Amino acid sequence: MAQGSDDIQALIALMARLPGLGPRSARRIVLQLVRKRSQHMTQLAQLLDRVAINSRECTICGNITDRDECAICTDPARATGEICVVQDVADLWALERGQAFKGRYHVLGGTLSALDEIGPDELGIPALIARIHGENISEVILALNATVDGQTTAHYIADALVDSDISVTGLAQGVPIGGELDYLDDGTISAALRARRRL
Amino acid sequence: MAQGSDDIQALIALMARLPGLGPRSARRIVLQLVRKRSQHMTQLAQLLDRVAINSRECTICGNITDRDECAICTDPARATGEICVVQDVADLWALERGQAFKGRYHVLGGTLSALDEIGPDELGIPALIARIHGENISEVILALNATVDGQTTAHYIADALVDSDISVTGLAQGVPIGGELDYLDDGTISAALRARRRL
Repeated sequence: MAQGSDDIQALIALMARLPGLGPRSARRIVLQLVRKRSQHMTQLAQLLDRVAINSRECTICGNITDRDECAICTDPARATGEICVVQDVADLWALERGQAFKGRYHVLGGTLSALDEIGPDELGIPALIARIHGENISEVILALNATVDGQTTAHYIADALVDSDISVTGLAQGVPIGGELDYLDDGTISAALRARRRL
Repeated sequence: MAQGSDDIQALIALMARLPGLGPRSARRIVLQLVRKRSQHMTQLAQLLDRVAINSRECTICGNITDRDECAICTDPARATGEICVVQDVADLWALERGQAFKGRYHVLGGTLSALDEIGPDELGIPALIARIHGENISEVILALNATVDGQTTAHYIADALVDSDISVTGLAQGVPIGGELDYLDDGTISAALRARRRL
């Protein structure tokens, strides 16, 4: 192998399959790792190995954790009356970075999709409804993506809770912080106008 | 740790330091790895570990290899009379992808730089000159970057070989394949014009 060794070639090929990377960026990363192999490379290998072995899904909410129940579900300081329903673990992490929500989560792991044959049972929506009723929840926040599938899923869950006293809410739609109207799509501007508020 | 576990956070922080990655892309990569942890993650950890342990520099040319002497230096099919001098292992790999050069290499590991106090001795240029004289070389190709430091280094090496019979060459400068004149810088267009050739 002219370019390093068979292992280096295999490492580049594996890296190139990661999201956002391609052959060129993978090559650059591997070369940098090899150059500084005494510093980062072994540490990276150990961390990857440990995370691969220890990571699992929280049995309550579906968050990724290294225990059976995640740090959020077992945190006594978090409000127990609110559940925030998200599509994906990445969305849960994004909300946590925002630090605005102090309740607990439920990760669906996807959205309803007729095309991909994903129905309520595949997403575990009956289990979510049972959890909501079982935990004495007062508010369910549906923090799902503002896409067709995301909103279909939100409406399905809202419908399933319509006969209860539970307040079901969704994220506000409008102009993002720092957003310039000129660059926003028409749908967002219309939504922001319809939901206008008194200053 | 709300976002996964301490190990996941450490993994994201380490990944974010790789070239071309930042916190956001590192998070995306780690999340994808954790999701598909049964497939890629352990394999990636093992490869990283093996490469970290086995990689070293070829004692002849400085290429990265898993043996004492790299596959190019020990390949009997490669021409022994030509040495291509490159700044970096990445440049060697780039030339190998081009498949146009059938000789051997010498990796400098940098360029002369008064500012960074890198002189001929730091780059091992005396050892390179000794290698060139010792191996009965007929042509030295200085494939160094077309930057000020790269060209200074090329001139220094060319000067050191001026009293020998060895032909010292550099890469041609001109319009890149597929390049549009309108988007090229003035220097490249001038160089291409000065080096114009009969069709």
